[in-house]
Amino acid sequence: MPKDLTKLLAPRGVAVIGASPRPGSVAGEILRNVVRCGYTGAVYPVNPKYDVVDDLQCYRSVSDLPSGVDLAVLAINRDLVLDAVEECAQTGIHNLVIITAGFKESGDDGVKREERLERLIEEKELNVVGPNCMGIINSDPAVCLNASFSRWFPHDGEIAFVSQSGSLGETVLEFFAEMNLGISQFVNLGNRAGLSENDFLEHLANDDHIRLVFLYLESFADPYLFRRLVERVGRSKPVVVLKSGRTQAGAAAVASHTGSLTTSDAIVDAFLTQSGAIRVSSIKEALTVLGAVKWGVIPESNKTVILTNAGGAGIIAADACEREQIAVPALAPAVTVKLASFLPPEAGLGNPIDMIATASSADYERTLHETLPTVDAAIVIFRPPLVFKEATEAVADGIVRVAEENPGKPILVCTLSRSADLSEFRNRLAAARVPVYTMPEAAVDALASLCYVSRLRRVKRAPDRHCSVDREQAMAIVDKARAAGREALTFAEGAKLLSCYGIPVCSFSYVDEESAIEAFAAKATYPLVAKVDAPDLFHRFEHGAVITGIKDVEGLRAAFHKLKTVIENKRLANGRILLQPMLDGRELILGMNRDRAFGAVLMFGIGGTFVEALKDVSFGVSPVSVEHARSMIQSIRAFPLLREFRGQPAVDISRLATILHRLGRLSLDIPQIAEIDLNPFMAGQEMAAVDVLIRLQANSQHSG
Amino acid sequence: MPKDLTKLLAPRGVAVIGASPRPGSVAGEILRNVVRCGYTGAVYPVNPKYDVVDDLQCYRSVSDLPSGVDLAVLAINRDLVLDAVEECAQTGIHNLVIITAGFKESGDDGVKREERLERLIEEKELNVVGPNCMGIINSDPAVCLNASFSRWFPHDGEIAFVSQSGSLGETVLEFFAEMNLGISQFVNLGNRAGLSENDFLEHLANDDHIRLVFLYLESFADPYLFRRLVERVGRSKPVVVLKSGRTQAGAAAVASHTGSLTTSDAIVDAFLTQSGAIRVSSIKEALTVLGAVKWGVIPESNKTVILTNAGGAGIIAADACEREQIAVPALAPAVTVKLASFLPPEAGLGNPIDMIATASSADYERTLHETLPTVDAAIVIFRPPLVFKEATEAVADGIVRVAEENPGKPILVCTLSRSADLSEFRNRLAAARVPVYTMPEAAVDALASLCYVSRLRRVKRAPDRHCSVDREQAMAIVDKARAAGREALTFAEGAKLLSCYGIPVCSFSYVDEESAIEAFAAKATYPLVAKVDAPDLFHRFEHGAVITGIKDVEGLRAAFHKLKTVIENKRLANGRILLQPMLDGRELILGMNRDRAFGAVLMFGIGGTFVEALKDVSFGVSPVSVEHARSMIQSIRAFPLLREFRGQPAVDISRLATILHRLGRLSLDIPQIAEIDLNPFMAGQEMAAVDVLIRLQANSQHSG
Repeated sequence: MPKDLTKLLAPRGVAVIGASPRPGSVAGEILRNVVRCGYTGAVYPVNPKYDVVDDLQCYRSVSDLPSGVDLAVLAINRDLVLDAVEECAQTGIHNLVIITAGFKESGDDGVKREERLERLIEEKELNVVGPNCMGIINSDPAVCLNASFSRWFPHDGEIAFVSQSGSLGETVLEFFAEMNLGISQFVNLGNRAGLSENDFLEHLANDDHIRLVFLYLESFADPYLFRRLVERVGRSKPVVVLKSGRTQAGAAAVASHTGSLTTSDAIVDAFLTQSGAIRVSSIKEALTVLGAVKWGVIPESNKTVILTNAGGAGIIAADACEREQIAVPALAPAVTVKLASFLPPEAGLGNPIDMIATASSADYERTLHETLPTVDAAIVIFRPPLVFKEATEAVADGIVRVAEENPGKPILVCTLSRSADLSEFRNRLAAARVPVYTMPEAAVDALASLCYVSRLRRVKRAPDRHCSVDREQAMAIVDKARAAGREALTFAEGAKLLSCYGIPVCSFSYVDEESAIEAFAAKATYPLVAKVDAPDLFHRFEHGAVITGIKDVEGLRAAFHKLKTVIENKRLANGRILLQPMLDGRELILGMNRDRAFGAVLMFGIGGTFVEALKDVSFGVSPVSVEHARSMIQSIRAFPLLREFRGQPAVDISRLATILHRLGRLSLDIPQIAEIDLNPFMAGQEMAAVDVLIRLQANSQHSG
Repeated sequence: MPKDLTKLLAPRGVAVIGASPRPGSVAGEILRNVVRCGYTGAVYPVNPKYDVVDDLQCYRSVSDLPSGVDLAVLAINRDLVLDAVEECAQTGIHNLVIITAGFKESGDDGVKREERLERLIEEKELNVVGPNCMGIINSDPAVCLNASFSRWFPHDGEIAFVSQSGSLGETVLEFFAEMNLGISQFVNLGNRAGLSENDFLEHLANDDHIRLVFLYLESFADPYLFRRLVERVGRSKPVVVLKSGRTQAGAAAVASHTGSLTTSDAIVDAFLTQSGAIRVSSIKEALTVLGAVKWGVIPESNKTVILTNAGGAGIIAADACEREQIAVPALAPAVTVKLASFLPPEAGLGNPIDMIATASSADYERTLHETLPTVDAAIVIFRPPLVFKEATEAVADGIVRVAEENPGKPILVCTLSRSADLSEFRNRLAAARVPVYTMPEAAVDALASLCYVSRLRRVKRAPDRHCSVDREQAMAIVDKARAAGREALTFAEGAKLLSCYGIPVCSFSYVDEESAIEAFAAKATYPLVAKVDAPDLFHRFEHGAVITGIKDVEGLRAAFHKLKTVIENKRLANGRILLQPMLDGRELILGMNRDRAFGAVLMFGIGGTFVEALKDVSFGVSPVSVEHARSMIQSIRAFPLLREFRGQPAVDISRLATILHRLGRLSLDIPQIAEIDLNPFMAGQEMAAVDVLIRLQANSQHSG
């Protein structure tokens, strides 16, 4: 059940526990922040040492507080925290912000302290932010609460900002203020002993005032819930995520910083894409994206026209578009003819349209008016030349008129200058919600994020069609193997299990006795493959337990003897010899692994020697929609090899995506499966797993 | 011979032709810029309409000017330019800046006007900047010349800035001023009818005042000369290049903007790397790189320690380092022990070192003192916490002391805030030449460029060892084929030509008569390949003119007949049948093509189906040093496949690099060769070209 955070974020009264008039006292600074920022409720310092703090009556203890205190902020000695929390609970204060550090981030004692706090939170049903945090802010004019030690109090706006880090949170608040990005709510999660990002996502979903959510995270409190929430919230409010510990060096730092689990960054990328979040990789990028998205004009697609009175900047913008995969298409001949009728002959009528330095406000308006309807968005570069015979505002007014004619098409303006002479130009555009940038690259970055949001919205969010599976039979196969104390399935079991989920496996036969070879050979289609099947034998190929290219009965007999020797030498008790036809087509690998943080993770790649050498693989966190499976397939570098190529027909991507989707379903349905390797999985005329390795979770009954 | 640009950049007197007191007159604005910025020489307006302009005596014509005028700036009607230039030459003014537009950038008339100007420049031996440019600036206090219509006059510094674009140049000047980057000389090249970037590079090489060169280019006036100059200048003064038209969209824009040749961006990248330039891809990046490099502290290598009092920012910095391939190694145990002796137990002693919010100036100094000697560089993040009991300058002073102890190791500081409270902190660091950034990502970008400069300096610049070649014999082969009117060499000719340059080719024999097969078969080592060799037949494989895997005399005979049929069907007059052993190893492709701008360009890649599908290739512009050849080989994505892999030994990279180097030499020595394709080139036990295609330049004697 979602937690009710209304009183936490908009309390009638706030108690600041530990508040002192001493300069440098953290609780004292928080008290002063609450008062200074104009909190509309009542404020109560609590400190046994004082009767008055900063002209406010000070209470000796929590139990002395009058009624109407909905929130307590604790910034006291770590050894006093647990008692104070208990006292708050007894007095009926269920919302707490614990600033104090010295919990799980600092040694064994801290870990124990945090465990006791967690028990208390659960027992007393408390809403706790922190410990080891900077506090919370609600800039809604009806509340105006700065219950934090942030020096920056944001102005009210449409953004909610939830940050796992405190110092970084304050940095971002400063830059939001500088960029005129209004923040309604800020929460620094700290150690997340009580409330996590998910509780706030759930709460924000129902807050109509919030139009954008920005999260800074170093780890996910509960990835599965996070994904469900972002899928839901993201439909109406874009969720921008700065997830750090992105890379190996960073991940090592996270581990020592908050004790969080590290996760491979490729999985995080897949996970955030699947959730529908917008991942950014730097504070700068976050500011650009939020600045662009807050205006809410999302383009239909990515076709863009570039207008400029400065040729070089137009080229730089076009280059940046190419890097960001934004299309800058040639203009239609009819449009070019129209432009030529009023622009000077020196103008460049490609895209970018170089209107040269003499371009007037009328040139800007008319050119934009003629071209914008033929594309999805425009980048307008206007740097007033030394000799400009009009007021620059005239250019802004013309752009605004065209913007109003084309409400669904974002126009991004770029000035190449921060000069104060342009302030009225900037103000008029901002008033009409047309964003203005200095550098062309920033305008392109912003447009790229708008295009990304556009793509997110176009992705079919319809649930995948029901796929019929036989979970019971699959479960029975796994149970039986585990009951026998085995940690892997035989090929035959694996094939059966996969068939329960509609995942195709190459036909096969066992030949146990030499005497059976003649009969088998008579009806076989050559060439054949022979391999040893034994539950204890992983990576058959490396053990010489696979013989390919068998062309006749002699070859078959030779292979049989060779593999028998392998079984004997390796003492594979349940080893059997298995025969398969050799399949044509592209060699792929499909796999599943369990990640400690994200659960079942699917992998897709080109198989054979290349997968090992180039690590050209893509990931998806289960459940994997058919849509995401398709993008997994398309995102590997070697994807061109799956198209029609050198006489081989194109691989059936839809069918392959469905198979990946089913593999995801299987991995969720049967958590007793630890790992799956379908390597190679052949995609040719027939599409089927040629080798199957399915490892099971250790069965505690039999292990140890 | 290098041109003497001394008087152009530091004239005794300047004439501004066309100067008028009317506001909005470009020449008038330039005159006012010259006066306003405090030019130390004499200024002469020239305009038949006025006697006085802005309190200066105005001359009716150039011929009326007194002696001592070294430079004339022309901003007059395009139709008057040529006469004025001629008049200047007659009066002895040989340095000109032509602001006027309407030349090759604007239609056929403009192209003709520019051609006439070019002839005049050559005839009269003039130094001309422009036409169609913004002018030049020399901020040296002894000169103080702003002979341009730029609103921004930079303060004197160590940077020379040469820009092909005017508007972009002015933008960059504005931001240089904002970032406190001093510019000594600024030149906007415009159409380059006279002087190009190369003339200025040559001049700057001898200017001790200049320590850094920044170029904005849309094309290269003369790539070969540019490279020689940057190789020379770059050894002492880093050359930073923002080359636009980087991508396809951008390239299209360049073509229509300045009529320059477009060149594939991968070639430009290789070319700039080979030249030893630092390529940046945005104005922002240029500012970061220049800001970092101007201090001149270049690290030995890329091992970096990160210190922070804000955990999250440390993680973000570590992530950014990983992306930029900057090493953030674990600390030595002895160092960790030392740090643990004075940092609090809550501190994180990994790398980043999280000294937590309580870190004092002494903690900063001591931690930096202990760690910096063990690495090459440091990123120090200091955001004053709410409660900081010292002056922030104390932290700066500590950092400066450690910087002085370690003069060769850059320290990059990051504040996470632009707050004015930190201005003294910033000033003290700047005074000690320690750069300060706001965002951790910017500090990392800056460090990345320092590491790049460090790598450039470490690259062996020694000329490659003399490789013995037989140019005469090679030339004779080519001449003979061209004399016979052929546009390609036979396999045998090609093999001979390559052997003259020490490039190995697989052994081969021709079998012209069926009767010769028996004799050949008797001494052959199978398997064999048979192919049709005919100068008119390119891409043999696609024409069914290659048969592989021949195992015996029967196979040989069958192949012979099949290929004879191909020769007959395709009417290949000089077609012969060629036999080769099948070589083992990795299939590579080595090639050479001539680019219109850059000349001979080498290509390297993995051969076979992959090269076509994945376009995984790298480039080098001839001459290609062995060092660059090695980096070409190592930079393809599939490089791991060339290491020891699945039982195959590692490819001999040194030998392969030497072969590429020799191919470059061949392509320079014999410009009559249009194209070379060695595909496949096999790298196994033996290393040799298996197929050879050498196309020649059309021989004008025989063509048409």
